[in-house]
Amino acid sequence: MHNETMIKSEKIYTGKILEVTLDTVILENGKETTRDVIHHNGGVCVVAIDSDDNILMVKQYRYPYKQELLELPAGKRDKDELPETCGIRELEEETGYTCNKFTKIGELYPTPAYCTEIIHIFLAEELVKTEQHLDENEFLSVEKIPFSEAVNMVLNNEIKDAKTQIGILKVLAMKNNR
Amino acid sequence: MHNETMIKSEKIYTGKILEVTLDTVILENGKETTRDVIHHNGGVCVVAIDSDDNILMVKQYRYPYKQELLELPAGKRDKDELPETCGIRELEEETGYTCNKFTKIGELYPTPAYCTEIIHIFLAEELVKTEQHLDENEFLSVEKIPFSEAVNMVLNNEIKDAKTQIGILKVLAMKNNR
Repeated sequence: MHNETMIKSEKIYTGKILEVTLDTVILENGKETTRDVIHHNGGVCVVAIDSDDNILMVKQYRYPYKQELLELPAGKRDKDELPETCGIRELEEETGYTCNKFTKIGELYPTPAYCTEIIHIFLAEELVKTEQHLDENEFLSVEKIPFSEAVNMVLNNEIKDAKTQIGILKVLAMKNNR
Repeated sequence: MHNETMIKSEKIYTGKILEVTLDTVILENGKETTRDVIHHNGGVCVVAIDSDDNILMVKQYRYPYKQELLELPAGKRDKDELPETCGIRELEEETGYTCNKFTKIGELYPTPAYCTEIIHIFLAEELVKTEQHLDENEFLSVEKIPFSEAVNMVLNNEIKDAKTQIGILKVLAMKNNR
């Protein structure tokens, strides 16, 4: 078993959505080294598919990349919020849909070298139109895309976001496995 | 088009593998807000498949999750290093294999809300045994797993790492598309 033992954790920064610590650890060979760690509360993403086999996607500006990205509806978990509750909440807030069938299909660790974030992935089916209600400073457009076209966009490298690639490819593999 | 305009960027922390800035931006509604941004040089991962349809995986301790994870061979780009060069270098360093066929199959953005990292994904075929040479403080075990078993491990949520899920599911979709 590979292992590392923490001997010190120094808080570097507390931001709005993340915390940074500089941790000192002992490696397997007994040597000491440091680890930069980003602490994040985690989130959810939702593969929402309507009765015509369209997938609901959101387009929004992503500041770190200075570009608009097409992604699955997703969001951060409020403190102590269950992933299921968060997923249904974020789906409705961002797209204006809720659903009668909501199934967990996995988890993903975006960057295991330096970040603690866990994203829970759900499949939403039997969608029901309600109303979108974005946060005051949240700007995004909803797009309905045929599922097969979304698969092609992943294979052609037009969809870059990790959780979105995983959600789409995982549902594709589940369909093909049936 | 959704957009944000940066008006200030304050350096918060410079670590070994990442930098943190606190940026002030103007939103679409004219309001000001801040963005925590993790700057990372980016990396590569490699789906390496041998002539018996086994995939080469590496198991290593991931400190942020306090657990061992099974992942694709991968690594950070050295400054100005081409993704292709980095991919072939990391494959050989971590697994002790090089290859005669190396194809780019995509890119992924792990956490577009707050990080600049881009991971380039390659498919390595026609593998050739050479020699593993890990960094002094790098500890990992190489595992050869039948490709179909790796697919099942993704579908069963046993493989959590994002780049690994994407690499495996993308190669699966490419095979099924042929």
